[in-house]
Amino acid sequence: MTAVTDSGVEGCVADVLAIAAHRDDVEQTCGGTLLRMAARGLRTAILDLTQGEAGTRGSGDERAREAEDAAKLLGVGWRQALKLPDGAIENSLENRLEIVRVLRVVRPRVVILPYWQARHPDHAIVAALGYEACFLAGLGKAPGAAPAVRQTAPSARAMRLAAPAPAPAVAPAVRSAESSVRAEGERNSLELAPHRPFKIVYASLYADVRPSFIVDITPFIEQRHAALMAYRSQYANQAAGGGLFVPEEEIRERTFAEARHYGLLAGVRYGEPFVQKEVGLVDDLTLVPVQSI
Amino acid sequence: MTAVTDSGVEGCVADVLAIAAHRDDVEQTCGGTLLRMAARGLRTAILDLTQGEAGTRGSGDERAREAEDAAKLLGVGWRQALKLPDGAIENSLENRLEIVRVLRVVRPRVVILPYWQARHPDHAIVAALGYEACFLAGLGKAPGAAPAVRQTAPSARAMRLAAPAPAPAVAPAVRSAESSVRAEGERNSLELAPHRPFKIVYASLYADVRPSFIVDITPFIEQRHAALMAYRSQYANQAAGGGLFVPEEEIRERTFAEARHYGLLAGVRYGEPFVQKEVGLVDDLTLVPVQSI
Amino acid sequence: MTAVTDSGVEGCVADVLAIAAHRDDVEQTCGGTLLRMAARGLRTAILDLTQGEAGTRGSGDERAREAEDAAKLLGVGWRQALKLPDGAIENSLENRLEIVRVLRVVRPRVVILPYWQARHPDHAIVAALGYEACFLAGLGKAPGAAPAVRQTAPSARAMRLAAPAPAPAVAPAVRSAESSVRAEGERNSLELAPHRPFKIVYASLYADVRPSFIVDITPFIEQRHAALMAYRSQYANQAAGGGLFVPEEEIRERTFAEARHYGLLAGVRYGEPFVQKEVGLVDDLTLVPVQSI
Amino acid sequence: MTAVTDSGVEGCVADVLAIAAHRDDVEQTCGGTLLRMAARGLRTAILDLTQGEAGTRGSGDERAREAEDAAKLLGVGWRQALKLPDGAIENSLENRLEIVRVLRVVRPRVVILPYWQARHPDHAIVAALGYEACFLAGLGKAPGAAPAVRQTAPSARAMRLAAPAPAPAVAPAVRSAESSVRAEGERNSLELAPHRPFKIVYASLYADVRPSFIVDITPFIEQRHAALMAYRSQYANQAAGGGLFVPEEEIRERTFAEARHYGLLAGVRYGEPFVQKEVGLVDDLTLVPVQSI
Amino acid sequence: MTAVTDSGVEGCVADVLAIAAHRDDVEQTCGGTLLRMAARGLRTAILDLTQGEAGTRGSGDERAREAEDAAKLLGVGWRQALKLPDGAIENSLENRLEIVRVLRVVRPRVVILPYWQARHPDHAIVAALGYEACFLAGLGKAPGAAPAVRQTAPSARAMRLAAPAPAPAVAPAVRSAESSVRAEGERNSLELAPHRPFKIVYASLYADVRPSFIVDITPFIEQRHAALMAYRSQYANQAAGGGLFVPEEEIRERTFAEARHYGLLAGVRYGEPFVQKEVGLVDDLTLVPVQSI
Amino acid sequence: MTAVTDSGVEGCVADVLAIAAHRDDVEQTCGGTLLRMAARGLRTAILDLTQGEAGTRGSGDERAREAEDAAKLLGVGWRQALKLPDGAIENSLENRLEIVRVLRVVRPRVVILPYWQARHPDHAIVAALGYEACFLAGLGKAPGAAPAVRQTAPSARAMRLAAPAPAPAVAPAVRSAESSVRAEGERNSLELAPHRPFKIVYASLYADVRPSFIVDITPFIEQRHAALMAYRSQYANQAAGGGLFVPEEEIRERTFAEARHYGLLAGVRYGEPFVQKEVGLVDDLTLVPVQSI
Repeated sequence: MTAVTDSGVEGCVADVLAIAAHRDDVEQTCGGTLLRMAARGLRTAILDLTQGEAGTRGSGDERAREAEDAAKLLGVGWRQALKLPDGAIENSLENRLEIVRVLRVVRPRVVILPYWQARHPDHAIVAALGYEACFLAGLGKAPGAAPAVRQTAPSARAMRLAAPAPAPAVAPAVRSAESSVRAEGERNSLELAPHRPFKIVYASLYADVRPSFIVDITPFIEQRHAALMAYRSQYANQAAGGGLFVPEEEIRERTFAEARHYGLLAGVRYGEPFVQKEVGLVDDLTLVPVQSI
Repeated sequence: MTAVTDSGVEGCVADVLAIAAHRDDVEQTCGGTLLRMAARGLRTAILDLTQGEAGTRGSGDERAREAEDAAKLLGVGWRQALKLPDGAIENSLENRLEIVRVLRVVRPRVVILPYWQARHPDHAIVAALGYEACFLAGLGKAPGAAPAVRQTAPSARAMRLAAPAPAPAVAPAVRSAESSVRAEGERNSLELAPHRPFKIVYASLYADVRPSFIVDITPFIEQRHAALMAYRSQYANQAAGGGLFVPEEEIRERTFAEARHYGLLAGVRYGEPFVQKEVGLVDDLTLVPVQSI
Repeated sequence: MTAVTDSGVEGCVADVLAIAAHRDDVEQTCGGTLLRMAARGLRTAILDLTQGEAGTRGSGDERAREAEDAAKLLGVGWRQALKLPDGAIENSLENRLEIVRVLRVVRPRVVILPYWQARHPDHAIVAALGYEACFLAGLGKAPGAAPAVRQTAPSARAMRLAAPAPAPAVAPAVRSAESSVRAEGERNSLELAPHRPFKIVYASLYADVRPSFIVDITPFIEQRHAALMAYRSQYANQAAGGGLFVPEEEIRERTFAEARHYGLLAGVRYGEPFVQKEVGLVDDLTLVPVQSI
Repeated sequence: MTAVTDSGVEGCVADVLAIAAHRDDVEQTCGGTLLRMAARGLRTAILDLTQGEAGTRGSGDERAREAEDAAKLLGVGWRQALKLPDGAIENSLENRLEIVRVLRVVRPRVVILPYWQARHPDHAIVAALGYEACFLAGLGKAPGAAPAVRQTAPSARAMRLAAPAPAPAVAPAVRSAESSVRAEGERNSLELAPHRPFKIVYASLYADVRPSFIVDITPFIEQRHAALMAYRSQYANQAAGGGLFVPEEEIRERTFAEARHYGLLAGVRYGEPFVQKEVGLVDDLTLVPVQSI
Repeated sequence: MTAVTDSGVEGCVADVLAIAAHRDDVEQTCGGTLLRMAARGLRTAILDLTQGEAGTRGSGDERAREAEDAAKLLGVGWRQALKLPDGAIENSLENRLEIVRVLRVVRPRVVILPYWQARHPDHAIVAALGYEACFLAGLGKAPGAAPAVRQTAPSARAMRLAAPAPAPAVAPAVRSAESSVRAEGERNSLELAPHRPFKIVYASLYADVRPSFIVDITPFIEQRHAALMAYRSQYANQAAGGGLFVPEEEIRERTFAEARHYGLLAGVRYGEPFVQKEVGLVDDLTLVPVQSI
Repeated sequence: MTAVTDSGVEGCVADVLAIAAHRDDVEQTCGGTLLRMAARGLRTAILDLTQGEAGTRGSGDERAREAEDAAKLLGVGWRQALKLPDGAIENSLENRLEIVRVLRVVRPRVVILPYWQARHPDHAIVAALGYEACFLAGLGKAPGAAPAVRQTAPSARAMRLAAPAPAPAVAPAVRSAESSVRAEGERNSLELAPHRPFKIVYASLYADVRPSFIVDITPFIEQRHAALMAYRSQYANQAAGGGLFVPEEEIRERTFAEARHYGLLAGVRYGEPFVQKEVGLVDDLTLVPVQSI
């Protein structure tokens, strides 16, 4: 992966990177979009910020294996999970710098973040944390150097950045970023060339907010569902904890209904909603989609 | 023009139709966009709803000649003016049916209307009037027949629709819709085949509202200005009424500054702002324009 | 029906009256709610403002029979259709007074109107038309007298109000308001006792707007669907015009998906969304529904 | 209090818990609501996050006694004050865990928080801090364990959680949570059973925002005022610092005027305003309160 | 009054004109502001659009006398009532032209209109009707001439404008505009010189909307109340219809509470709220009122 | 400067203090306003929170000299830069206390902050950080004492506050606050008398948000531009890094266009936009600026 050059940007690992708090968040909010991007020949990647240790069912190892399976089903070439605390993610400089390192390795044109209002506090904070990391990743002068200078010595924290804990092994089919990241990791993230994504969009499925745009996922809805079901420890019908969990059939019915709702907004069958902060830019009025009346 | 078939839709006169209250409204709010569409090979048209008789300067005839000149400069192939009262346009069924007739002749894919909040009451009402006309134009069963049925007899109003007052003569260079419209006019507008535009967008330059999208008019800004300046009776430096009118140089400076402001929103040099009521639909996240950070 | 006294309010025909532009609007936007209200022992009623003559399929007579069938399926005890022009409803005093007459006969506590922003112009205008009629219906001094006074003589319009065209015959199972209305109709609507509904809510299913509240229609979703399907001329799979119409199965899938979407907002299975303009009033915080986290 | 079982939920200390930054905040924003809930037979509780040491008048001890008196007047059975810094409350994990401990002891169905926009920074931050604590309190797997694991050793902070500083003595009439909390405190808060409140509402009196709903406090307005006046060191007419403080009579006039304003919104005499993030859920349209016209 | 020249603008009757639907609307929503303006030496005027014939209590004559008394108490120098239908005001060109005539006689710098969202349909429509009249009043070329031209003959309506029905007699202390208006009325309103108000603001007391600004009416609150109480037929404690009417004391308590609420928003004792559509313009930041923290 | 008493408030250094993240932010967003205030005889000051070390061009020393030059051109009498990390400003108590110290020395009536939504994370965070510092600065009881009490001993952080690193030398023409600050600095900031600004406004030029008000900077637009151009290392046409930087002429064109856009909103030539959270308070309706129609 040190020689990923086929995107025309040397060292670019993926064109689209989805960042989320928990394993299976991406599957629920933008899995269909990742499938669509892959079907267009684009390379996609996922960064999960936690190991999901606060979940009721399943162990971290199980989740890691399931995430890998889901990544395969989504056609995602790169997936990694940081170890931020599940249920207590903070928008700290330290956490931002961990994401900066990933951004400078993956070098995506587009970053997908969760929408900034959410029931789960982790989702809301990741919107700010991820945005600020994208900003820092593009600064020419070492962004993390600021606190270092103030501390006048390499701190334990800085050391930790240079040698991250090994990530769980991943199967070859998912082109693991581990080797390259670990190789890059030998150098401080600040030594990696700056990279600022061109576009940041917010997956807003969890939020009751009017989207800026919809992505048509009609051909990918079944495959997206399969990817979500890859999290067997979470969603398979089973005895333990069953009272808290909706059965598999209901998940299908519920997620398809939401996809249908957003599809209807845009005149397609199934859709995933996104918010962007910027205004749009239109080349040709006759190509603007979504019928008015 | 009775045989305009080159758009693939028989009888379609233009791909994009801009409807506005007063002559020179279109030049100010979406003239650059019309130029851009024409440069892409699309056919464009303008419907002015009034003759501009409430204006302080110039006669109706002068205005008509100027509008024709401006249309040539904008590359617009079809321009017509109705005779709704300047300063007192109403959203009445009668007025809607006058526009229905035009829509069924021009058969545009996209209609540009003024934004629905505006200082000038005519601008605000045209947003509603135009929208409802677009709706009516697509109804299969005679929309105007409804009141007729209720009145159980051809009313004077219906007769009037069938034989509109002749429009002012237009030069051949602007492919006047008069002949075809007049020919069509022999038949009741209700006899024309229904047509509903696919897309309705609102030119929001006059309004202090966040646009949905910008159209980049950078290459066309000078030509747009020339089209506006074609309204010599309104904008040329002159003695009469000069106290009320901004001099020509200030118009240039003001309109360029606004175009620059909206261009900056979208990362281009000069832009025109539009609002759409629908959400967007995106094919490919890596092609979504306007840089986030 | 002249002696409907079981509601505690003499002469009250129904507790809830849904007013809509077209036959089958109510079935789509608040049919489940009407079923729920009926299941609670409340009396419900529907006022369709048009005869649906602008529709592509089916005749007015067919529609009338279908509307009656749908009313039976919804458990609605009173249904009537005015003859406002389909596709061109106006918020005129004349139209308001037609609705005033109905309100003073039916005397509902709650009126359901369509939401005030909509693709179909009729839906948007009915929100204003219906609201203003509810206001007028409660005025002690003859509201319609005002224009009469100005005209200084009983106008043709006033006469027409006194003797409305006979409505289509309805089967006894739907307790037709015709007889009582016709009996009352002998007197001018202004002679009926004023009545102002306590509550006006807006069915917002067609609009992409955040609802104030949801009504849980889970037990009634199949019956609501049956009521919609009663409009055989519109929705049954058939040859004519099929290109424009979605097949029956898709209607089911689409309407259930929307009901599921709004149900999910409120933590129930299927729901219908409403907007109210007023703030809420809560007796007991521990009884406020819809889980926060 | 170790055997509070009469609510049907074993160990539940109160049905409604109001959390606020400063002593006397609750009295001002939702004191009437707590009185109403108590009058309905519900058990209520208050958690003040600071000791109010930044206040100009009165000592911490005085304030504690006054808070106890106010609690008695409000019929509140449980009141405690944490020691977060007055004027500098942070939304830190440590602070969240302090509130988690309280939530797992009190186990309320409803939590009242201040609205998230406010002049006083403490009020705004408590909205986020309290919400995230409610979320954490319901997590099955130890939420605070995350940082602990990351630190790989019991930190000073964790120790501190296990043995909180003794709270000020409270009179028996207010059923102090101290004993039970201290008893529970012997165990880490993480050992208490998880508890997530069903409902979180935001008292919005300080904010100029449209409320979701009003609670009618008409019968309780005088008692609420008495509770506020229990803060004699703050509000009693006195010499010291008088220039900065509004006299007692003005407090009455001001707070009654605001209660009247919000009452008028809902058609009652005196009211307290609340915001909820969720949509409502309505059983019966004829029971929806607040007259529309 | 034909020679009112002391404002520096020949023919200007008042600096501030409040336009409202019903007698006593102005007293409730901006009476204190009119008193404040009068106290600053400005001339004020009121135009009531209806005669209040839909009211439950009192006759039109009574109301006219009461309005005159109220005008005296408010220090208003000019008050007139049109005869638009109470409860059914329309935003028609005819009605606009009636107001245009008044605007061209009174020639105010500032016009106060009701806010555009309101429970009473008349209030909402007057916001649009009044705004459009202000626009028309400033048009150089005869605005009303448009329909005239279309009708090609002086219509009955135009005649009616030229000879309005005599207004009720007013006492000399209120400088009645009747004589001058009647004198002017001999000429068509279109013959009066155009006049466009500089500023239009919306009195928003009835609406639950955030105001743009507050006017401090503290010194005038009692006098405003006296002006409202001048409507004895409406507000005095009495037998007839008492069930529907709030007693006098409650009116005082209610109106003072609302004035206090809006005063508190701006840091003064009593205030009246207004909305303006324009942004503000500030000379000196150190003079911007209303404390931030 | 120890004897600045001419403002009527002893010890007040400036009437208006602009706080921003980076040197040259103030020049871009409110430089014209500072010039206008100075022209009115008010004293102005600037606090830059960072040294701008993350910038691509120029050294910290260069920037400091340029900032001093810019301050002279703006007529600003006091300018200082803290050493918060460029690109990573946090809203921490420590940072708030650094600003509290400045506020208690400068003692402004008005504080200008950046708007709270921005592309650059530093700008957004400074809105909250600055607001909370203004709040803390006014607390009578030592705000920073809270954590101190909790730590039970003077912390290293508190010491650091007492002896800040020397600021870069400034020329006498800019009345440097260094001496007085350093003198004051000998005492803990908590020993300085509390001071709370009366007014906080947000410079919103970078944000696409509707301003509350505009300040007319027409006479100062060239001088403002000169002040921005004083940052020669950033903006002068030069070889190094030229690819990333817009040439000097484009800066002029762009900043003038934005100033023109905001000027047009308020009917003046050039303007700077501001947001305030409070409602306005108006003395006299006839003096409210900005024409309505």
